[in-house]
Amino acid sequence: MNIVLLSGGSGKRLWPLSNDIRSKQFIKIFKAEDGSYESMVQRVYHQIKKADANATVTIATGKTQVSAIHNQLGEEVGISVEPCRRDTFPAIALATAYLTDIKGINPEESVVVCPVDPYVEDDYFDALKELAAQADKGEANLVLMGIEPTYPSEKYGYIIPESSGKTARVSTFKEKPTAAAAEEYIRQGALWNGGVFAYKLKYVLDKAHELIDFTDYQDLYAKYDTLTRISFDYAVVEKEDKIQVMRFAGQWKDLGTWNTLTEAMVENAVGDVMMNETCKNVHVVNELDVPILAMGLHDVVISASPEGILVSDKEQSSYIKPFVDKIDQQIMFAEKSWGSFRVLDVEDESLTIKVTLNAGHSMNYHSHKYRDEVWVVTSGEGRTVVDGMEQEVRVGDVVTIQAGCRHTIMAETELKLIEVQLGREISVHDKQKFPLE
Amino acid sequence: MNIVLLSGGSGKRLWPLSNDIRSKQFIKIFKAEDGSYESMVQRVYHQIKKADANATVTIATGKTQVSAIHNQLGEEVGISVEPCRRDTFPAIALATAYLTDIKGINPEESVVVCPVDPYVEDDYFDALKELAAQADKGEANLVLMGIEPTYPSEKYGYIIPESSGKTARVSTFKEKPTAAAAEEYIRQGALWNGGVFAYKLKYVLDKAHELIDFTDYQDLYAKYDTLTRISFDYAVVEKEDKIQVMRFAGQWKDLGTWNTLTEAMVENAVGDVMMNETCKNVHVVNELDVPILAMGLHDVVISASPEGILVSDKEQSSYIKPFVDKIDQQIMFAEKSWGSFRVLDVEDESLTIKVTLNAGHSMNYHSHKYRDEVWVVTSGEGRTVVDGMEQEVRVGDVVTIQAGCRHTIMAETELKLIEVQLGREISVHDKQKFPLE
Repeated sequence: MNIVLLSGGSGKRLWPLSNDIRSKQFIKIFKAEDGSYESMVQRVYHQIKKADANATVTIATGKTQVSAIHNQLGEEVGISVEPCRRDTFPAIALATAYLTDIKGINPEESVVVCPVDPYVEDDYFDALKELAAQADKGEANLVLMGIEPTYPSEKYGYIIPESSGKTARVSTFKEKPTAAAAEEYIRQGALWNGGVFAYKLKYVLDKAHELIDFTDYQDLYAKYDTLTRISFDYAVVEKEDKIQVMRFAGQWKDLGTWNTLTEAMVENAVGDVMMNETCKNVHVVNELDVPILAMGLHDVVISASPEGILVSDKEQSSYIKPFVDKIDQQIMFAEKSWGSFRVLDVEDESLTIKVTLNAGHSMNYHSHKYRDEVWVVTSGEGRTVVDGMEQEVRVGDVVTIQAGCRHTIMAETELKLIEVQLGREISVHDKQKFPLE
Repeated sequence: MNIVLLSGGSGKRLWPLSNDIRSKQFIKIFKAEDGSYESMVQRVYHQIKKADANATVTIATGKTQVSAIHNQLGEEVGISVEPCRRDTFPAIALATAYLTDIKGINPEESVVVCPVDPYVEDDYFDALKELAAQADKGEANLVLMGIEPTYPSEKYGYIIPESSGKTARVSTFKEKPTAAAAEEYIRQGALWNGGVFAYKLKYVLDKAHELIDFTDYQDLYAKYDTLTRISFDYAVVEKEDKIQVMRFAGQWKDLGTWNTLTEAMVENAVGDVMMNETCKNVHVVNELDVPILAMGLHDVVISASPEGILVSDKEQSSYIKPFVDKIDQQIMFAEKSWGSFRVLDVEDESLTIKVTLNAGHSMNYHSHKYRDEVWVVTSGEGRTVVDGMEQEVRVGDVVTIQAGCRHTIMAETELKLIEVQLGREISVHDKQKFPLE
């Protein structure tokens, strides 16, 4: 099975765990089989591999997520990187070209496209296989998954099928309706449109060539920023006559708010948390190193990360966005392909961060124009290159780096260091990268 | 007026703002006249100085609080330091000897002794002056303040006066009663015993010499650890016949729990806090550098510090202690006489802290047996001494200190540095102090 997972943009609705660079799908909140915690993207990836060990998984996403994906899924996973955001039609066209031109998959094969973030069980992946098998048959150009509605939601689009069978031709689509209209649609047998569909690669390649002047993947990638923003629904789905829908009645939850996310948590507390016996329906996610004590609360979600602390009534938590938009602070932690960093202290003219490099990884070779840096290695072993000079480093070693000086560090074991940045204009934008000499 | 403020031990009832080394009286939570925040000890000190600019204020306390007191009140304030804890009679005897022998106050003068932590208004200090004036008269050896009860509290002892006048002879004392007994006492005209009283210095000096074999302050200090633990109430108050009580009907609140403390807060939020309009009776105290967002909460207190995060229903917050007792983590921040420190990162074999030295102050000259340290100066200017070698330091300077090496830093301006401690056995107890050569 070929699967393209659409990994969407940054979201603030799960602040302080999601931020401008960490989307909700990277929050480690779900209990894995081995007892550790995994993120949505890790959970879905492991579910796919369980359903089909040979599945080719490609993640279609923006540049900012590449590091986090490699960090969480390893280096083998395929990533179709959008050089900039251009809505779903260009993204799916690019991922399709990536599968044929880069991965060398036969254009007659089918692929399933689905969002990375719904919370689903194993039966969902069986349904994806059926979707791909149905697309293989060629009865239709597009086969959508239609999710059996559990309530008259105003958040989803609806698919009205022509008949009530497992697989049916699509009669029509309905935009996000009012609750009353949704009830009426459901009476007519409507299904939720979860944005999950299968097609033969050739079909979307042809559509792409109709709408965009390009030769192959490399060419499409190169001119990506010139493409018109257009959704796959608008460009393809709504215009297609040969289109079917397959019913899916299993669990399918959109975990877009703290209220829905906590419903999917197996345990009420993640991290260092104490709760007294008078707490009812309280969920706490603590990513800090210090304890949270919760007492006498009802229907509350608490979440703490290096970005901040949320304490909210669960219902109210859906109104978080305008408040989070007001927060103007620098990114306090991030996962990178080489490891992670966390801001420890912010002063006007200094910034102290903790850097963790994974074994075998290194930073880019780079310099800063306006700041000096001091590294103190606190664990592990590795090698630094400073202005071309290579040197071994280990615990306790101090490396001072003047502004303008090129530097990198390569971790032999997992390596941690404290970096003190010093200067009047400390900014993430002050960075020039160089090839290693 | 001579005042002795009894500054009691560490309390965990206001965790995470109070901890093993920061007592509740040092939490900066009250709005001062200039808009800044002040602690209980700062508030009461400023109130005393406003009521009587020439008041001699002495704080009777244990060793662990000396740094915080100097940091919050400056170097001029008198401190009678108990070398170890020996209950209130030895503490008051020591403070009394301190006033006569160190401060040179005439033993015929009177002094008012009161706890540092009740929340009071200016009329309280007028009442203290009246108490001292009454003691000056010599009608009684001890003059107690009797606080008009506002409810039949089970938390306080009661004083039964012989008559209902402003000043009366004490008939008898009652221990903390049940609510029913308290109601009965109040019907009989009983007053709360807030532990506030005045006496002529000579009176307590004589009592001390009766019970303890000592010559003067220095001698009493030297043998302090051999003294029997005994309360002032038991040793003196309950045995005294010539004892009066003066009524006080002003505000007098014991802010011992989060519930009572928040009642005294003028604003609902201290620190970086956002609250939406659906929050009712919510108080937030945030000592961290990142925001707290509270939504849809009722009757809740939230408090965050480098030690941890409390989110509690206000009523429930009085049951905090057993939970906090379970927390076994190192001290994450502290005020010292020379400034303050805060732990930024804890690893098995390293510890990173931020040190702030006040201008003109320095650390002790000291060494560590089992750890190396690296200092990176991030702001200010000063001088280091490392194994006798003195050197000027400024922003960006790095000082590496091997285990065994003696070191200190003196701040010329306010000076901040990041200290990385490295070693297998990092402990606050690994410290040897030396005189500066």
